[in-house]
Amino acid sequence: MRVKLVVAYDGTNYHGWQIQPNCITIESELNRCLSELLNEDIQVIGASRTDTGVHSLGTVAVFDTNTRMPADKISYALNQRLPEDIRIQESVQCADDWHPRHCDSKKTYLYQIYSAPFPMPSFRLNMHFSYHQYDIDAMREAAAYLIGEHDFKSFCSVGTVAETTVRTIYDVKIESRKIPGVFIAGREGKEEPVVIQIYVSGNGFLYNMVRIIAGTLMEIGLHKYPPQQIQKMLEAKDRQAAGPTAPANGLTLYSYEFPEFSEKRS
Amino acid sequence: MRVKLVVAYDGTNYHGWQIQPNCITIESELNRCLSELLNEDIQVIGASRTDTGVHSLGTVAVFDTNTRMPADKISYALNQRLPEDIRIQESVQCADDWHPRHCDSKKTYLYQIYSAPFPMPSFRLNMHFSYHQYDIDAMREAAAYLIGEHDFKSFCSVGTVAETTVRTIYDVKIESRKIPGVFIAGREGKEEPVVIQIYVSGNGFLYNMVRIIAGTLMEIGLHKYPPQQIQKMLEAKDRQAAGPTAPANGLTLYSYEFPEFSEKRS
Repeated sequence: MRVKLVVAYDGTNYHGWQIQPNCITIESELNRCLSELLNEDIQVIGASRTDTGVHSLGTVAVFDTNTRMPADKISYALNQRLPEDIRIQESVQCADDWHPRHCDSKKTYLYQIYSAPFPMPSFRLNMHFSYHQYDIDAMREAAAYLIGEHDFKSFCSVGTVAETTVRTIYDVKIESRKIPGVFIAGREGKEEPVVIQIYVSGNGFLYNMVRIIAGTLMEIGLHKYPPQQIQKMLEAKDRQAAGPTAPANGLTLYSYEFPEFSEKRS
Repeated sequence: MRVKLVVAYDGTNYHGWQIQPNCITIESELNRCLSELLNEDIQVIGASRTDTGVHSLGTVAVFDTNTRMPADKISYALNQRLPEDIRIQESVQCADDWHPRHCDSKKTYLYQIYSAPFPMPSFRLNMHFSYHQYDIDAMREAAAYLIGEHDFKSFCSVGTVAETTVRTIYDVKIESRKIPGVFIAGREGKEEPVVIQIYVSGNGFLYNMVRIIAGTLMEIGLHKYPPQQIQKMLEAKDRQAAGPTAPANGLTLYSYEFPEFSEKRS
């Protein structure tokens, strides 16, 4: 049978998703623990790859197995073997030919920025720290230009291997919230710490696309470019036209939806 | 001069605040890094001690120094030497006789619970994981009985050394929020993951008091006791009457306020 997994991980201690020689990756840990558990050689197929240090609340992967263990019990047994920074959220049987990269999907990424005078240790693994203060309205105005179908060639790393650089972004939502009371008695002129969350949803993303979008929106939030510059960046179809790639630790694959997926009940 | 520090830390890798032989603690790291930085033997005095694995967004500590470095610059220099899971948020000069344990203060603790079918790796350091579902309304109703001045003898660990077990709780606020879209297409009968945040503010806390409050509120949220049982627990003045001590990793010292503190400007 083919089993679909929803896999969450804190990417801090891994060299990303994809198997590489001499590195510990999410994929290598899944293959190792599944092979031990099921006593077969198991190789998972992931829906998408994340870079070193990027996190996930629910990536999707499938694998084929001859086991007689019910598919929905594999999550419990596998979590007993996996390191604590990887946890299966769900395991279900799917059609034998269902492939997570060959069907329609909606992916949402979350990029988190902690903007404050000093870093906050409890946020260090999941948020990019910046001592700058950002103009959130300018970032929101800029984000609106990204929505829709565009050629995102300017927003992917050079060397990307993809048939086309056209992608559709469904939504970009930017939230900003203060952390009340974190500081003792307000000092004059002292900025309050702010957590900025950028949610980007789309049908697919090019290599480093969300980190380049986040890095570009941050520069717009610092008034390095006006919001409407996004249009010119898209038109340029040149990586040099957009902003820098934001650091990996701020990025989390937030959710993955497959509108046409249906569980196979045996 | 005497310098007041606001210290944030992720307590995962430390044996709590207080210096102990053969252990790395927050206090020992501060003393070591301050002594190296200022080239004197520095010993900090903390406003409160946290246990192994407990976190803080802003504990207060003071120390005396002969340095000529301006007090407000010490934060920057000290952060260069501290490990990344400890960060000074503020350093200011204070009166030479100001002592953080000998003055009025308002402390707020945050206890976080991640209630879901499976643990979420990104939340594992700061939230207690539970696969139970909690009745938040019952927890809120119970929490109201804790507010005010009470003898909290039932809510402190046996062996607590304190002149009195009477304390004043100003407020207990319980927030519950779903994490939208974390799971792929909703499965019938599947619970949505929820983050529960319990904020407890008071003028002081006994040993393990917030963790016992959290553990007790969780049992009430599971309908093990009715909300009004809190009154009987308080009246009993017996640790056996209250619920269990919730795990340390869910606890964060959220804020510390000293209403009468004023910075000394030289």
